[in-house]
Amino acid sequence: MRFVVPGFLASGISAGIKRNKVKDLALIYSETPAATAAVFTQNRVKAAPILVSIEKAKRHLCQAIVVNSGNANACTGEAGLQDAQLMSRLAAQKLKIDEALVLVASTGVIGKRLPIEIISKNIPQLVEGLTPDGILSAAEAILTTDTHPKVVWKKETIGTKEITICGVAKGAGMIMPNMATMLSFILTDAAIEAETLEKVFKEGIRCSFNSISIDGETSTNDMAMVLANGKAKNPTITGHSQDLGLFRNLLVDVLVKLSSMIVKDGEGATKFVEISVVNSKEYHDAAKVAFSVANSNLVKTAFFGEDCNWGRIISAIGASGVNVDPEKINISFEDIMVVKNGVGTGIEQEERASKVLQREEFKVVIDLNTGSSDARVFTADLSPEYVTINANYRT
Amino acid sequence: MRFVVPGFLASGISAGIKRNKVKDLALIYSETPAATAAVFTQNRVKAAPILVSIEKAKRHLCQAIVVNSGNANACTGEAGLQDAQLMSRLAAQKLKIDEALVLVASTGVIGKRLPIEIISKNIPQLVEGLTPDGILSAAEAILTTDTHPKVVWKKETIGTKEITICGVAKGAGMIMPNMATMLSFILTDAAIEAETLEKVFKEGIRCSFNSISIDGETSTNDMAMVLANGKAKNPTITGHSQDLGLFRNLLVDVLVKLSSMIVKDGEGATKFVEISVVNSKEYHDAAKVAFSVANSNLVKTAFFGEDCNWGRIISAIGASGVNVDPEKINISFEDIMVVKNGVGTGIEQEERASKVLQREEFKVVIDLNTGSSDARVFTADLSPEYVTINANYRT
Repeated sequence: MRFVVPGFLASGISAGIKRNKVKDLALIYSETPAATAAVFTQNRVKAAPILVSIEKAKRHLCQAIVVNSGNANACTGEAGLQDAQLMSRLAAQKLKIDEALVLVASTGVIGKRLPIEIISKNIPQLVEGLTPDGILSAAEAILTTDTHPKVVWKKETIGTKEITICGVAKGAGMIMPNMATMLSFILTDAAIEAETLEKVFKEGIRCSFNSISIDGETSTNDMAMVLANGKAKNPTITGHSQDLGLFRNLLVDVLVKLSSMIVKDGEGATKFVEISVVNSKEYHDAAKVAFSVANSNLVKTAFFGEDCNWGRIISAIGASGVNVDPEKINISFEDIMVVKNGVGTGIEQEERASKVLQREEFKVVIDLNTGSSDARVFTADLSPEYVTINANYRT
Repeated sequence: MRFVVPGFLASGISAGIKRNKVKDLALIYSETPAATAAVFTQNRVKAAPILVSIEKAKRHLCQAIVVNSGNANACTGEAGLQDAQLMSRLAAQKLKIDEALVLVASTGVIGKRLPIEIISKNIPQLVEGLTPDGILSAAEAILTTDTHPKVVWKKETIGTKEITICGVAKGAGMIMPNMATMLSFILTDAAIEAETLEKVFKEGIRCSFNSISIDGETSTNDMAMVLANGKAKNPTITGHSQDLGLFRNLLVDVLVKLSSMIVKDGEGATKFVEISVVNSKEYHDAAKVAFSVANSNLVKTAFFGEDCNWGRIISAIGASGVNVDPEKINISFEDIMVVKNGVGTGIEQEERASKVLQREEFKVVIDLNTGSSDARVFTADLSPEYVTINANYRT
């Protein structure tokens, strides 16, 4: 399958930042400056490329993103900031575009100086390698402990024009908002006002990248951004366009698919679980309960063990800090209710629910019965493999 | 070693709640009603015995505690509440004391009805088995996945009198405030006003049971209480007594020792780590940072892997929600500084720090350099063994 978006070129190469000649340097380029929206990690400790890109993203206009894996360029001080700026400048010079239009991102180990001379030496090759079907190469070059590249590509008619959208992402560990705690770049040829793009992007982020959790960790390096270059020549979408809904659905679909791919490829993950909290007083409370359950090590190990241990789920609900009413809580695995009004429904129901837990994907529904707001979080189980991967990540 | 506290009797037997004839029913009894202070889980979902004991503890007077392991009597509804009340009543009848003076506690699996007929049948034997040196038996009978009983016993002269104090605890998993997320009972023959006892107990809890975390989980069943029966015949300690400081030190020492024992015996734990956050604006912020680091799966797996991965520590500090200044943060393993002003101090220091990580016990010092408040949290590493234990806990 060829992942092509009109007006975009991309490339990914092995520069030698990582060992074993795997790809570690990516470039995404739009033939014309594109309307842009971006979100960044909420971690107080922000990597140098994040600090650089936050400033540049304020213009809502971007033409290229240069990304390396294998080194986070985080906690590297003033020197790290200069390295990130230089990485952007060198790419801009070679691309012959304004440096202000080139954003940067890095992912990998924290606290090591970026090997800027290796990157510098490879930027000409990176630029020369730009091709319309280079998106998959770029998706490969941004990976860390991911087991496979993550690309979602869609084409849809909006109005009288065909719109193409393609997103790439990397995830694997440190997956938890806010923000996205991963890297993701969405490219589309749709014509859309920057302001409207930002609004729908942020809405989409809430129910996708900000609704997943693998280990409750928020990284120093994460960002997600969307570039819309208008090559589809559709009437520019604004906040009042009839087409806005269609575009939003298309974008949200790509974001949700990418974020689900991240959870499924979570470090050591063997299960993909949707935690659905319904009938809460407020969205905020529902999300808090969902994350408390999704981040509970005891719940996650029970998922790994395929144990219908709803006691750990109700305990995590109670520990969420939300003022729940224990005697109103219902818990179901898919459509099998194991807790009604805070009390277990018996061993037969548990045995039926245990079969659900044997699946690779299932849903836990938590009904708080105190209102009408819902929230949904995607999470994975916690396996011994997660520990082994992370005990040995740097060695 | 004989653990005896004047005026207290205890017993622990195998009633058959757990399999394999291990002890699962405990009784602690004071010959006279004792001044009492107690703290309970902050989980919104509270087990039946917690609900019963919270009410009874309001009198600040207690003469007996009956405790079972193997079943939490949580999420058992109205029937569970009646079971907890009956457990208290049966013990009171056999002991021939006021039912209001008998507190109850349970620990084990959530959501199963308490086997009250088994408990009921065994209460006579439990009461008849009371002996002055039964504390160790009681300590054994309250365990779940703990690998050994936890008892701290001390004798000290306060004023002209010898004061004895002895604490027992169970822990192992679900260890994180608030509150204690375990069971602990402290017995002393000191004479002390209930009000003063409560004040020093709560102070002591903050720096002991509320300053430990194994897995960030807060259980439905946890409580800690202290009973002071006055048998030492010292002048009753009040808020103005000269002896208050000595007694407080004695109590805090027992609480800190017990809470450290719980962390060391944490499920799958191979390391005992003190996270010491210093020079914060406020205690509350310091504690939040310490817990964010202590509960980070990535930090804990790095401890298990003996990897000096300070990047994960600074990332957890930044993700704590506290408004830290990344460029002022110093991080040391014992006295070896690996981060100064937010930047790594180099590979040589990391190599020296790696030797510290090979120890079974070590300290991580996080200097925020923004104030003068400190907080300290004790935690353990995260090993594949933790996952294995908890994936198979109920089966």
